[in-house]
Amino acid sequence: MSFRRKLKLYVITDRRLIDEVKGVKAALEGGATAIQLRAKNIPVSEMIRIGRELRRLTREYDALFFVDDRLDVALAVDADGVQLGPEDMPVEVARELAPNLIIGASVYSLEEALEAEKNRADYLGAGSVFPTSTKKDKYVKVIGIEGLREIVEKVSIPVVAIGGINHENVEKVLKTGVDGIAVVSAVMGAPDPREATRRLRIIIDKYLP
Amino acid sequence: MSFRRKLKLYVITDRRLIDEVKGVKAALEGGATAIQLRAKNIPVSEMIRIGRELRRLTREYDALFFVDDRLDVALAVDADGVQLGPEDMPVEVARELAPNLIIGASVYSLEEALEAEKNRADYLGAGSVFPTSTKKDKYVKVIGIEGLREIVEKVSIPVVAIGGINHENVEKVLKTGVDGIAVVSAVMGAPDPREATRRLRIIIDKYLP
Repeated sequence: MSFRRKLKLYVITDRRLIDEVKGVKAALEGGATAIQLRAKNIPVSEMIRIGRELRRLTREYDALFFVDDRLDVALAVDADGVQLGPEDMPVEVARELAPNLIIGASVYSLEEALEAEKNRADYLGAGSVFPTSTKKDKYVKVIGIEGLREIVEKVSIPVVAIGGINHENVEKVLKTGVDGIAVVSAVMGAPDPREATRRLRIIIDKYLP
Repeated sequence: MSFRRKLKLYVITDRRLIDEVKGVKAALEGGATAIQLRAKNIPVSEMIRIGRELRRLTREYDALFFVDDRLDVALAVDADGVQLGPEDMPVEVARELAPNLIIGASVYSLEEALEAEKNRADYLGAGSVFPTSTKKDKYVKVIGIEGLREIVEKVSIPVVAIGGINHENVEKVLKTGVDGIAVVSAVMGAPDPREATRRLRIIIDKYLP
């Protein structure tokens, strides 16, 4: 599967919902093609321990593995890439420090999307498509389906949609032409994360075979 | 001045007390030989902006420049080194990722000191010598003058004493044979940080000329 295709079902950890390793294992069994370790405010030593375990699992399932925010942790655990938001390390600085990492940029507007592409991000996490309870962050704005569609039309790097996406609204999102769907709660907050991932994957595969 | 000697007056930022750039400028004018940017819970993009300014200033004054915790930021701003605590990235991992950085390990017991030396830390920040209000961290224990002396005697890498050190008690600390004195409040919390540094430097120079 190409890099772009491997972004199609991108599952992000959230320990408030489920233990990272347990959640990721279930998501991979259910067909997740990319995993992101997102763990704010935990000791870095712990982040590295968990990251190594997730790296082992994602290798086993041939999935991409990203680390949120911390380039140093991404390097330490041999992740495929790092995900950087508007308040994180600038993409061009990260690129210089780690030329071999895939760099994803979180963007919350068309302007930020164009800027990130210009700065040579490898892909975009674009959102928030719908309102979401996962991120309590002043930088998260709801761009809606139309905002997302505009980004997809105007950039050429892969776009992964994020923010409040679930089994009910995912088809609407896929119709914008995105390359991937990122979820937190829809999988990590599900009673059966493996089954929740499997059902999402079936819908996604209709649009991104 | 040798690396060891440049650790002798090691001043750490604390924005709760004074703006980082303003405080560091005053400390350097007063005779600080090493500076550490410690800025928890601020956006990384801001940390990099401030770090670059501190790097410029420390070069101008021929002082060492360290970044607390974040190896990626240390690399991004071309710092001389990174300071790692027990919950941060393990020293040996940091060494592998950044072989050219000076790696300081924060230790709070003789056992941690010996372990850090074994893991090839370049120097130790050992403390807390006295009770301190700066760090509200479960990993900070008061080791006292005797605990510090024991560490100084048992390790061969440079030891910088930290925790509650001020103009009144610094001579007692210097008599243990440490290679440096690290301060936060005694400089950054002083009405005149430049003058507070200058007076500390005069005392330190009697023991570490």
